[in-house]
Amino acid sequence: MRKEPTTAADARGRVTELIRDARICLLTTTAVDGRLVSRPMGLQAAEFDGDLWFFAYADSAKVRQIRVNPQVNVGFSDQRRHAWVSVAGTAQEGWDRARAERLWNPLLKTWFPDGLDTPGITLLKVHVSSVEYWDSPGGTVVNLLGF
Amino acid sequence: MRKEPTTAADARGRVTELIRDARICLLTTTAVDGRLVSRPMGLQAAEFDGDLWFFAYADSAKVRQIRVNPQVNVGFSDQRRHAWVSVAGTAQEGWDRARAERLWNPLLKTWFPDGLDTPGITLLKVHVSSVEYWDSPGGTVVNLLGF
Ligand SMILES: Cc1cc2nc3c(=O)[nH]c(=O)nc-3n(C[C@H](O)[C@H](O)[C@H](O)COP(=O)(O)O)c2cc1C
Repeated sequence: MRKEPTTAADARGRVTELIRDARICLLTTTAVDGRLVSRPMGLQAAEFDGDLWFFAYADSAKVRQIRVNPQVNVGFSDQRRHAWVSVAGTAQEGWDRARAERLWNPLLKTWFPDGLDTPGITLLKVHVSSVEYWDSPGGTVVNLLGF
Repeated sequence: MRKEPTTAADARGRVTELIRDARICLLTTTAVDGRLVSRPMGLQAAEFDGDLWFFAYADSAKVRQIRVNPQVNVGFSDQRRHAWVSVAGTAQEGWDRARAERLWNPLLKTWFPDGLDTPGITLLKVHVSSVEYWDSPGGTVVNLLGF
């Protein structure tokens, strides 16, 4: 079992590490009928600073859902390392070409075949409200409020 | 890439397989302040039949949250196999000793040291409303409504 981090800065560093390693998360939103729905998403962590960034289609269900209810959860599982992270935040959609260029990576071609010129491509920014993580199966949860 | 299942029964079988293999999921609930929060949970899949079962503490945040809003998401990530499952459902808490005995496994001792006699232990049943799964990174999503 890992040593518990003793300071908020340690905990923050550990979350950044866990998130960076995971790369793929589950993004949960609330559907208009009230169901909670999630889907795997590639996280663009190039400039991790408390906001999480995703590429998405402007007309996708998730983007329509966050226009109605911006509350989302971004969940990371790393079963091999027995690490889990739950990020609660609010999502906002908006295209920013310069930022998209900094965040782009070639793996995204799978979902956006024409790269940044793919019709309908947009960016989702998740502003983090709170973070919790679990670092080992029996490990105590570490809370980071107001990340 | 796996062959897409051609029938609903195939898809159902595949989801059962993915869920059984994953064992640990992220259970997402809505907090009273509206945040979406998730935590890793061990799934008790011994009698998988469209309902998912978890052991929990009756006074835990998640149980209090589902009393207010029973909508939950149960998300599974298996990055090694490139498989993801999202289950939307409604959760209900209720103790049932006979069922708990059938669902119990010794690994649960980590969280419930006195086994089924642990004070405050209860069962959570998630009744499945809809399921989606992704079976490979570029694979199309498969929808199973009314599981
Ligand atoms: C490993 C993996 C990574 C994915 N990454 C993205 C992504 O970065 N952006 C995206 O829009 N969809 C991505 N998808 C597809 C989504 O999971 C989802 O099927 C799609 O975005 C439509 O979701 P929605 O209808 O709920 O809006 C990914 C799928 C997988 C399996």
